[in-house]
Amino acid sequence: MKLSTVAEKTFAVIAQGAADLELKGAAGLDIAESGQITFLANPKYTPQIKETKASAIFLNEKENIERQDIAVLRAKDPYLAYTRALRLFHTVPEIFAFVHPKAVVNETAQVAENVEIGAGVVIGRNCVIESGVKIFPNVTVYDNVKIGKNSTIHSGAAIRENCEIGASCIIHNNCVIGSDGFGYAKDEKKRWLKIPQTGNVVIEDDVEIGAGTCVDCASVGETRIMRGAKIDNLVQIGHSCTIEEDALICAQTGLAGSSVIGKRVILAGQVGIAGHLRVGDDAVITAKSATSHDVENGKIISGIPAFDNRDWLRSIAAFRRLGEMTRTIRELEKNLVKMKEDKSV
Amino acid sequence: MKLSTVAEKTFAVIAQGAADLELKGAAGLDIAESGQITFLANPKYTPQIKETKASAIFLNEKENIERQDIAVLRAKDPYLAYTRALRLFHTVPEIFAFVHPKAVVNETAQVAENVEIGAGVVIGRNCVIESGVKIFPNVTVYDNVKIGKNSTIHSGAAIRENCEIGASCIIHNNCVIGSDGFGYAKDEKKRWLKIPQTGNVVIEDDVEIGAGTCVDCASVGETRIMRGAKIDNLVQIGHSCTIEEDALICAQTGLAGSSVIGKRVILAGQVGIAGHLRVGDDAVITAKSATSHDVENGKIISGIPAFDNRDWLRSIAAFRRLGEMTRTIRELEKNLVKMKEDKSV
Amino acid sequence: MKLSTVAEKTFAVIAQGAADLELKGAAGLDIAESGQITFLANPKYTPQIKETKASAIFLNEKENIERQDIAVLRAKDPYLAYTRALRLFHTVPEIFAFVHPKAVVNETAQVAENVEIGAGVVIGRNCVIESGVKIFPNVTVYDNVKIGKNSTIHSGAAIRENCEIGASCIIHNNCVIGSDGFGYAKDEKKRWLKIPQTGNVVIEDDVEIGAGTCVDCASVGETRIMRGAKIDNLVQIGHSCTIEEDALICAQTGLAGSSVIGKRVILAGQVGIAGHLRVGDDAVITAKSATSHDVENGKIISGIPAFDNRDWLRSIAAFRRLGEMTRTIRELEKNLVKMKEDKSV
Repeated sequence: MKLSTVAEKTFAVIAQGAADLELKGAAGLDIAESGQITFLANPKYTPQIKETKASAIFLNEKENIERQDIAVLRAKDPYLAYTRALRLFHTVPEIFAFVHPKAVVNETAQVAENVEIGAGVVIGRNCVIESGVKIFPNVTVYDNVKIGKNSTIHSGAAIRENCEIGASCIIHNNCVIGSDGFGYAKDEKKRWLKIPQTGNVVIEDDVEIGAGTCVDCASVGETRIMRGAKIDNLVQIGHSCTIEEDALICAQTGLAGSSVIGKRVILAGQVGIAGHLRVGDDAVITAKSATSHDVENGKIISGIPAFDNRDWLRSIAAFRRLGEMTRTIRELEKNLVKMKEDKSV
Repeated sequence: MKLSTVAEKTFAVIAQGAADLELKGAAGLDIAESGQITFLANPKYTPQIKETKASAIFLNEKENIERQDIAVLRAKDPYLAYTRALRLFHTVPEIFAFVHPKAVVNETAQVAENVEIGAGVVIGRNCVIESGVKIFPNVTVYDNVKIGKNSTIHSGAAIRENCEIGASCIIHNNCVIGSDGFGYAKDEKKRWLKIPQTGNVVIEDDVEIGAGTCVDCASVGETRIMRGAKIDNLVQIGHSCTIEEDALICAQTGLAGSSVIGKRVILAGQVGIAGHLRVGDDAVITAKSATSHDVENGKIISGIPAFDNRDWLRSIAAFRRLGEMTRTIRELEKNLVKMKEDKSV
Repeated sequence: MKLSTVAEKTFAVIAQGAADLELKGAAGLDIAESGQITFLANPKYTPQIKETKASAIFLNEKENIERQDIAVLRAKDPYLAYTRALRLFHTVPEIFAFVHPKAVVNETAQVAENVEIGAGVVIGRNCVIESGVKIFPNVTVYDNVKIGKNSTIHSGAAIRENCEIGASCIIHNNCVIGSDGFGYAKDEKKRWLKIPQTGNVVIEDDVEIGAGTCVDCASVGETRIMRGAKIDNLVQIGHSCTIEEDALICAQTGLAGSSVIGKRVILAGQVGIAGHLRVGDDAVITAKSATSHDVENGKIISGIPAFDNRDWLRSIAAFRRLGEMTRTIRELEKNLVKMKEDKSV
């Protein structure tokens, strides 16, 4: 691919180097080889520019460079431009339409022509599988499921009855969409009586859901993952939650039922969210934290339970010295008592 | 279904409305429609009674209601009655007996006539599958497994060798029952030598186990989940644990080996339980907490490590101000020093 | 098996008892029966020696025993010797070579003769399956995967494209090896643009990976699990991590991307490790802790964020009394103010 093509497709401008320079890949500063394009996003790595074997580099508009033997593409956000370049060099392979003879597709299902359905896949009654969909082996699709255009479902995933998956989604291996919510009433003998979980899960377009993640169906109504949300591995999404557009949920985070995660929220790894609350747009909850209260838009919070991240940083610094602090207080008490005694004498 | 039938089957009494009123479903106060029955359990929602479109409502014996156009069923526990009504309207579909031609059932397995075995299911040697069992596609049942009457196993689950599942259990998608416990001895070269995990898992009747949950077999003996216990998604149950009757374990909780969880215990989400301990009957451990000690019957504990919930609430309130507290103590010290100096002058 | 054989194979020495005593199993002190061998590793259990029904016992070189009716094998590490005995009595069954007719093996795959491939297994293009490999039903092996000699893959696992598994590994049920790393760049509209995840996972020899665990592939390059590492259930290993030799990672622990876990490190249950850091050789991170910084070799750390374990023990002891401590400080302040007033009077 020519430098000029890469520039055009990454919305970058050639500042140095020949437009017809041939590029064959993209990689980080330290591992890039001749013929590859790299990037600088963090000034910490500026010294590595001297050493890199890359043939081209994305730089922001301010960064200067001494080397003349390396092509320079100027981009507002070099990391974003680099990501776009990576995507140019690693395109998703085209669909090679087939339904494997060892797949089982119910005769009432509507399956578009241009799909890949692997061995061991089972597709239930009245499902709709749109064109461009790729279903890897041993996936189970229950009845009345809809899978939108160009979505990919990896092996071992389960899509339960009545769930809907939008277009251009990626559902990773062994993910479970639409398992029963966890709801019981206590009976007279203090035994748990299962509350029927009759709702579904609706996943909108451009959503990616990680391996082993479980998204429960609603008891009544729906659990909804909105356009562009990205969910990592082994995450638990409880019944009737709503994950809004472009939210990012890292691995092993868990949400109890009926909570709403706002637009562009970031939940870091192993976070816990109690039920029936709202995390406001653009809020960030740092790793291992938990909240049982609403979170304001744009707040960064930490801790169990979580509060303002700056206050938390002060609290954890003090926590490390808490043993010592206990002794200090005891000393203060003694001193005070002594001073009183001295005085009374 | 007539109001009188709903009343009878939910152990409720008609206090207002016609016995032959036709009901067609049940739903929450805010979303119920005409023809549905709803409930009031929390006085917080009393105002919604004025607005609800429901045709009938479960109320406790004290709650008064002004509206005359809505049937009233009196019940001791309106939420429980409502759950029973939901179950009347959402009955589990009957078994439609079949063994899919793409299932593989070992010839030595004893499979009752009245079962559903989906495509891609594999059933090993000497298994016993009782009547009413429903096994969804792509489940793998290893050798010598017993699955009791009317139990349901969802797609992708694995039931390992020698495990037993009782009657009326539900095992959700991609659940693993009987994986090896995590046990090693350190050898002379500081390498880990695997301890054979030769025990099994026994699951009693009326147990529900969530999607992606893993229950390890015992090294020797058994891991046991007792009657009526309910386990959520992505939970880890270590080898040789015992979960007693009607315990409730929420998502992403983990138990190390050989611990006992007492009757009706509630472990909230993301809780951690160390090995070789007992959590007493009716104890509650709140979300994200962990214990490495026994817990008394009926205690509510919180924190890492967990202690009395009320004390913990005080501690976390103070923790938020710990940075400030550090400064206060420093001030106290300075003042005291100064006072001493003043005095000595 | 004769006592002399057990002694020889466990590197122990007969100190008491007949060399030709027949043993038929191994079990713990409390449950061992006649004909079995047991062990004492922890002096706490010494009194149980009087009661045990075992016919033989592993003891260290110092432990004395009064009973004459029980054979004694002296071993440096009785627990290790016992583990070896257990392994003698519970050998792994030999391969019974077959490829099930309901497996789907791509014609370009190289599959050794001496393998077991269960029903519903799918093996992709250009895979290499070496001799002694055992693949349980419904496993999906993507293209270009290599599985080394004598490794076992349990049902429902997914091995994604280009991954390599060494010799004598055990991959438990529903484990996912090589799912996409979680990487996105933010575009001009604040939407997430997926960064192609083009690397792989390399698992060296003698590695065991628990049920439901997910190991992400690298974005570029590899995620590597080195020889002898043991990983429990429901663990998340982020992209480009390296787990060094003989590291032990307990259930539900999560690692963000690009971190290195040193040799023989122990990460207890539910630990969190941030990205781009190194946990030094032989370090221990206790359960439910998390670190976002490097950890020195051999350190034991605890807490969120984690610090020296002994300091943490002091801090958590003080934390329990933090509510009380707040009151004490308030009292001190009042007293001090009062003393100043008294003085000024």
